[in-house]
Amino acid sequence: MDDSVKYGFGPHPIPGSHVFALTPLSMGFVNLKPVVPGHVLVSPLRNVKRFADLTAAEVADLWLLAQRIGATVERHYGAASLTLAIQDGPFAGQTVPHVHIHILPRKAGDFPKNDEVYDAIDRESVQYKAAAAAQPAGEKLDLDKERRVRSHDDMAAEAAELRALLQ
Amino acid sequence: MDDSVKYGFGPHPIPGSHVFALTPLSMGFVNLKPVVPGHVLVSPLRNVKRFADLTAAEVADLWLLAQRIGATVERHYGAASLTLAIQDGPFAGQTVPHVHIHILPRKAGDFPKNDEVYDAIDRESVQYKAAAAAQPAGEKLDLDKERRVRSHDDMAAEAAELRALLQ
Repeated sequence: MDDSVKYGFGPHPIPGSHVFALTPLSMGFVNLKPVVPGHVLVSPLRNVKRFADLTAAEVADLWLLAQRIGATVERHYGAASLTLAIQDGPFAGQTVPHVHIHILPRKAGDFPKNDEVYDAIDRESVQYKAAAAAQPAGEKLDLDKERRVRSHDDMAAEAAELRALLQ
Repeated sequence: MDDSVKYGFGPHPIPGSHVFALTPLSMGFVNLKPVVPGHVLVSPLRNVKRFADLTAAEVADLWLLAQRIGATVERHYGAASLTLAIQDGPFAGQTVPHVHIHILPRKAGDFPKNDEVYDAIDRESVQYKAAAAAQPAGEKLDLDKERRVRSHDDMAAEAAELRALLQ
């Protein structure tokens, strides 16, 4: 997939090279600032905010794709568990108003306390918005000094890897 | 549903009166120690540990039921968002080895930091096991003094309420 095609993620255009899985109703794409290696997102192609807004066909397609992607990233990143979560609405921590499943490969001791992974997801969502706003001006983000916004090419390389594994 | 029927949740028998939704492949049931009002669980009827173990029919059925239950508990408990999460495997915080979706109605300010809801889910899972072990001896749990194990009848009453709403 090349970057002449953009996929909508709420208000954010996702370049085709960052999308590694496509079905008629759903897409899997890489993350600007993954919380753990292999942290990816799965969304309906249709730009809808809440999980309740999805049709039955979209619900089934979305979660079947998430199941397939989850098994692939867990194996590929040498993990032994997965966190699968939807922050469905603003009071659940949703910052991009487009349904998305967070898939995180998990390993023993990756977070000192298990819940910290979710705190990191929240920070990531905020950063996604901030980074999208900051990127055009070429600014570096300073919201979380431990993690860097990845380059477009790093993200495309990871997507290419996952795309090959899923074929 | 009466208590002569038990549904398996990993090693734990769930009395029929605590199950408020049943499909051919999935069940919705109330929680021993809900983290927020209306915190319920949805599981496949088949006792499988990991999300990847589910058939396509089970995945679709599970999440369509979760979608329906989520909309119902969000409205019924006066919430405006939902947390939907699977802790898929021990390194993701799973303590009961039977796939289950946590559904939590969320409100503004219900947790000082959004991630604390997940920390509470983790504690709840541990308590579920401890409570199941402790209940026969009639002991009170002391793992989390802020929350009490609910009585069988309180749980059955909540399940009856939700069962009526879902019909």
